[in-house]
Amino acid sequence: MPDAPFSPAAVFAAHPRATTDPAARAAAATDRSGYEPPHPPDVVVRCETADDVALALRLAHEHGIAVVPRGTGTGLAGGSSAQAGQVVVDVSGMDRILAIDPVEMTAVVEPGVLNATVNAAAAEHGLFYAPDPASTSICSIGGNIATNAGGMWCAKYGVTRESVLGLAVVLADGRLLRTGRATIKGVTGYDLNALIIGSEGTLGIVVEATLRLRPRPVRTETLAAYFDDVETAGRAASAITAARIQPSILELMDAGTLDAVDRATGTRHRELGGAFLLAQTDGFGAHLELDAVEAAVAPFATLVRRAADAAEAAALVAARRDAIPSLERLGRVSIGDIAVPRNRLAEAFAGLEDIAARTGVRIVSVAHAADGNLHPMIVVGWDESITEGPAKAALGEMFHLARRLGGTLTGEHGVGLLKREWVGEELGELSLSLQRAIRSAFDPAGILNPGKAI
Amino acid sequence: MPDAPFSPAAVFAAHPRATTDPAARAAAATDRSGYEPPHPPDVVVRCETADDVALALRLAHEHGIAVVPRGTGTGLAGGSSAQAGQVVVDVSGMDRILAIDPVEMTAVVEPGVLNATVNAAAAEHGLFYAPDPASTSICSIGGNIATNAGGMWCAKYGVTRESVLGLAVVLADGRLLRTGRATIKGVTGYDLNALIIGSEGTLGIVVEATLRLRPRPVRTETLAAYFDDVETAGRAASAITAARIQPSILELMDAGTLDAVDRATGTRHRELGGAFLLAQTDGFGAHLELDAVEAAVAPFATLVRRAADAAEAAALVAARRDAIPSLERLGRVSIGDIAVPRNRLAEAFAGLEDIAARTGVRIVSVAHAADGNLHPMIVVGWDESITEGPAKAALGEMFHLARRLGGTLTGEHGVGLLKREWVGEELGELSLSLQRAIRSAFDPAGILNPGKAI
Repeated sequence: MPDAPFSPAAVFAAHPRATTDPAARAAAATDRSGYEPPHPPDVVVRCETADDVALALRLAHEHGIAVVPRGTGTGLAGGSSAQAGQVVVDVSGMDRILAIDPVEMTAVVEPGVLNATVNAAAAEHGLFYAPDPASTSICSIGGNIATNAGGMWCAKYGVTRESVLGLAVVLADGRLLRTGRATIKGVTGYDLNALIIGSEGTLGIVVEATLRLRPRPVRTETLAAYFDDVETAGRAASAITAARIQPSILELMDAGTLDAVDRATGTRHRELGGAFLLAQTDGFGAHLELDAVEAAVAPFATLVRRAADAAEAAALVAARRDAIPSLERLGRVSIGDIAVPRNRLAEAFAGLEDIAARTGVRIVSVAHAADGNLHPMIVVGWDESITEGPAKAALGEMFHLARRLGGTLTGEHGVGLLKREWVGEELGELSLSLQRAIRSAFDPAGILNPGKAI
Repeated sequence: MPDAPFSPAAVFAAHPRATTDPAARAAAATDRSGYEPPHPPDVVVRCETADDVALALRLAHEHGIAVVPRGTGTGLAGGSSAQAGQVVVDVSGMDRILAIDPVEMTAVVEPGVLNATVNAAAAEHGLFYAPDPASTSICSIGGNIATNAGGMWCAKYGVTRESVLGLAVVLADGRLLRTGRATIKGVTGYDLNALIIGSEGTLGIVVEATLRLRPRPVRTETLAAYFDDVETAGRAASAITAARIQPSILELMDAGTLDAVDRATGTRHRELGGAFLLAQTDGFGAHLELDAVEAAVAPFATLVRRAADAAEAAALVAARRDAIPSLERLGRVSIGDIAVPRNRLAEAFAGLEDIAARTGVRIVSVAHAADGNLHPMIVVGWDESITEGPAKAALGEMFHLARRLGGTLTGEHGVGLLKREWVGEELGELSLSLQRAIRSAFDPAGILNPGKAI
């Protein structure tokens, strides 16, 4: 097979960055979703420049070879999983920050740079990059763009689409497209920039991004509140929204997650309550705004703890950041990503309890409460009753719960490979047919990440 | 002609809302750009429901008749101008607010509702709708969506695309597409919602929009600063950005505009300086943030006046809101809409002075300074030297100035009919060809607003 005239391996022998090394292929076969393809991809192209990407796509296009774009492989929906007959175009080595303009507050970066690296560089100029997935220290900007990633700060500052001004994208045939602009505003033509963001590598491969940075808040204030149960915490989160407060972070964790964090990190959050709400405010009036947060949650809470200093604040934020890593110590974590209207958060939690009761699968949850975005998680192997089959069934029920509440299948992780079966039901045939027509206009041969997203 | 078998008038005799009344056709022939088509459209369909729009598009699609969508006709680029052989689909009568959800902070509206009407209704719930074009009291939400309209508040709160969660759109063949979602976040499929917004009526006709409302700030503080000249004011605006402050409004006016406002409204701004900068901060720490604004502009200003109360603040904001109406008393105002990187504002003003000197055309300007979005204006007929020909030439030079500074042809008004000749130069052939392919996917027969936008 590898030596047949038009096998991917034979075709990509012409690419100086291509490798067929079995270890490289195995390492590029999947992401952090837990999905394992039956066979690894044939070739991995470790790109160092935009020209490397363009050459890879020209070769693939000419020979009709399927290409899977890949950053640091931290996706949670199988979006960068690759299998036999496919070529992985790995841009994780394109990890330079090309420019930071502290006056204009922009950064020009390559796609493989880590989210946290961008933020560290921005911080030197008193700036930050708002989209901050929990995986900030390991996820790449290219992957953030592919999934329109969110995170904790998007409660106030919006998701990736609101922080990417322009892109350079290699199209399926190797041509270079520039989208967006260097200015904050602009309405010349259709918004191809927003179209590329969140398209999960199906319209092109991003080789450069101009990111919008924001001033670091002059002041940040933090509190944590504990509640008897997660529905009450959900009502408290809705009370903050109803009180017309705009927290910069509003994160919710349930009892099971607190248990896991305590067990993994030695903290004792679970003793203080059955649910935890982390709220942060920022800006010149952060202290005054946190007073309003405190007043809104107090009627629901069993305990409110306001951080006295930066160290206390960091400890409270760490509890949330530690949630998924702590659960991962207990088994393979299958992470849901539903979003519902903000005022239906408590109903969503009740619905998840109901699913757990009916399927017998233990579900624990964290939520970006200000956005109505829940991550219900199933830890496969936590106890012997939780196996892959029932876990899959429970994930399907979560989707239908979200739809019933007027919500969506995926808030920020993307559809990838693993959620495709529900996409048609959410989007409807007319929308899907238009989206497929757009995909064909960009990639007539259908070589870019086939079988993913739409 | 009107009685030939497939003339628009004959075909639309089947539509109960269609009229061929000459006064109605003349009234629907153009917008506020000043462009006058040689002959008015053949038919105006005064739609009252989404079904009226769908029927109009089915008839047009079947017979290959060009359709021009129209709201309240306040566009500034000829986007809703219509001519002989075309049918205007007027949705200004679809002006209901269908629902406001004060907890979820959303409004569901029809396209003909006025921007100011939405804001008045939102205010009853302590909320506001952020995109606020200067034309707020006369412009419709559908037109705001068509052009991705901005305004003063988008310095802090973003443009229309950041405030529209979902749309119902009648496609060229009469089918109804729903885009977006009811949740704040969601990444299922491509962002057709962002694609429709700013597409200037070329992809479909919006018949319903779900708008994102925001909490009205608990506190707002206002100041005005005066400067010797507009370049200095531009540098002061850049100093605010550089000081990492996020004003909610940052508006700049030059000497010519101040003259016109003083003459029209009896104010005496021009005596206080040769340029005027209006800054507003909002939120819990608005007073503290305005201190920072004051400190940033003071080294450049000849006078800083801080509003002591709401009435004084309103008077300062009124000066800016009165700018264009005041200029319109002096002649026909041709409004440019270039955007440049924020730190190149002073260079843009210098470049405009240079264009005025070279072309002999007097140019006056206002600017959304925090976004780098300038509205250089030519008042045709202000004196006898300013005629249409040189005015057109000066507008062309403005575009090239914007491009030279890394900017764009249009920040928030759209391309419409009048800026099409420059679109190719800004977007390039590859981007344009993809955009045309998308347009064809939505409207294969090319009946929607032909000759506009891209």
